[in-house]
Amino acid sequence: MSNLGSSVKALVFDVFGTVVDWRGGIMREVAALNRAKGLDLDAARFADDWRAGYQPAMQRVRSGELPWTRIDDLHRLILDGLLQKHGVGGLDEAEKAELNRAWHRLDPWPDAIAGLTRLKRRFIIGTLSNGNVGLLVNMAKRAGLPWDVVLSAELAHHYKPDPEAYRMPPDLLGLANGEVMLVAAHPNDLAAAAMQGLKTGFVPRPLEHGPGRKPAPAAEHRFDIVAMDFNELAERLGA
Amino acid sequence: MSNLGSSVKALVFDVFGTVVDWRGGIMREVAALNRAKGLDLDAARFADDWRAGYQPAMQRVRSGELPWTRIDDLHRLILDGLLQKHGVGGLDEAEKAELNRAWHRLDPWPDAIAGLTRLKRRFIIGTLSNGNVGLLVNMAKRAGLPWDVVLSAELAHHYKPDPEAYRMPPDLLGLANGEVMLVAAHPNDLAAAAMQGLKTGFVPRPLEHGPGRKPAPAAEHRFDIVAMDFNELAERLGA
Repeated sequence: MSNLGSSVKALVFDVFGTVVDWRGGIMREVAALNRAKGLDLDAARFADDWRAGYQPAMQRVRSGELPWTRIDDLHRLILDGLLQKHGVGGLDEAEKAELNRAWHRLDPWPDAIAGLTRLKRRFIIGTLSNGNVGLLVNMAKRAGLPWDVVLSAELAHHYKPDPEAYRMPPDLLGLANGEVMLVAAHPNDLAAAAMQGLKTGFVPRPLEHGPGRKPAPAAEHRFDIVAMDFNELAERLGA
Repeated sequence: MSNLGSSVKALVFDVFGTVVDWRGGIMREVAALNRAKGLDLDAARFADDWRAGYQPAMQRVRSGELPWTRIDDLHRLILDGLLQKHGVGGLDEAEKAELNRAWHRLDPWPDAIAGLTRLKRRFIIGTLSNGNVGLLVNMAKRAGLPWDVVLSAELAHHYKPDPEAYRMPPDLLGLANGEVMLVAAHPNDLAAAAMQGLKTGFVPRPLEHGPGRKPAPAAEHRFDIVAMDFNELAERLGA
């Protein structure tokens, strides 16, 4: 067991890609739309394009071009553009809203619930996602994610990797920054957390972008813990 | 089953008095302090005095005399005054901080966990307390309260019964105000929630202020549901 297991009190998790398989979930929903509407959308391409619109959309908020906007609404902005680009014209407002909520219906990676359940015995476990609170709560209820607390960039009105997003969980939990570990599959997210004094747990998710895609290079970063999945993370932290 | 069971999506609970027995918990901790320190404090009186300081302390924040202050810190302000008043001089800083965290270690009423567990199958269940997020998370972990989401006046920077505190849960959960029910043992809390369009569930807790004390009069208020405990609430809501 790492001695981190005694200094860390709370683990907060990146969600999209780290806890849940956004690509597989969106592909499943797009395939269902194809069947329901007689469409022929490339589900993988659609999922990748939707996700690719996410960072630029957050940047429009950071730059001040848009006011603070929750991710549900950014997802919808991007979706409306994608539907136009792919020539999908036959969806009414309720159908578009329902498709947009596909991001609430993503499935966890196979190890996630068992690992979180084990980690919860020893640590406070929570989210630290750019996803809004409502999205994260709906996702957790559907998937059975056993969070102690649902924390979102929405509560700081700053998306990750802005520093304010990482300082929010220790502040709200009454902990020192170094008593909180961010767990993420994304080295850049972890590096930004480390700059604020949080501990870092890297769990690579090589299938995040689909089979055969190269994961983000992590070699140039140092993390407090690297684990292959949440069960190994629990093992390493003595949970 | 009430037809409220199909229109309400989330139940948010007042905590001190409604979910947990603050008076019994504080009395237990004061009794332990008496034993540890050879003191002779009147535990019931001490608990009642500590709680009685709470509304005036929040009013100092509302009036602008104090900046936004979490309940942990208000509890400590009140405690320091009480220790002085009761002539308790022998506690060091760590002991005072530990005593102040007695509010994190309160026990649920006997029906609370079973009722919440049942309600959680059908509804989003969360807190809506003036207690700060860290306090509520620590309390839930110790007591096994199965919240889906921990919401606190801290997130609105307005204590109940300010209107902003009641509008925050529907806003964060992406629900209409009328899709959220406040459950509380305190008619005034429920009346303020109803003014914002929330549904109301009254669960009287006649022992909140100790045996033989008269509960707050509820007759002049109307609530969407009145239930004797959380199990009956679940029954009435079809959960």
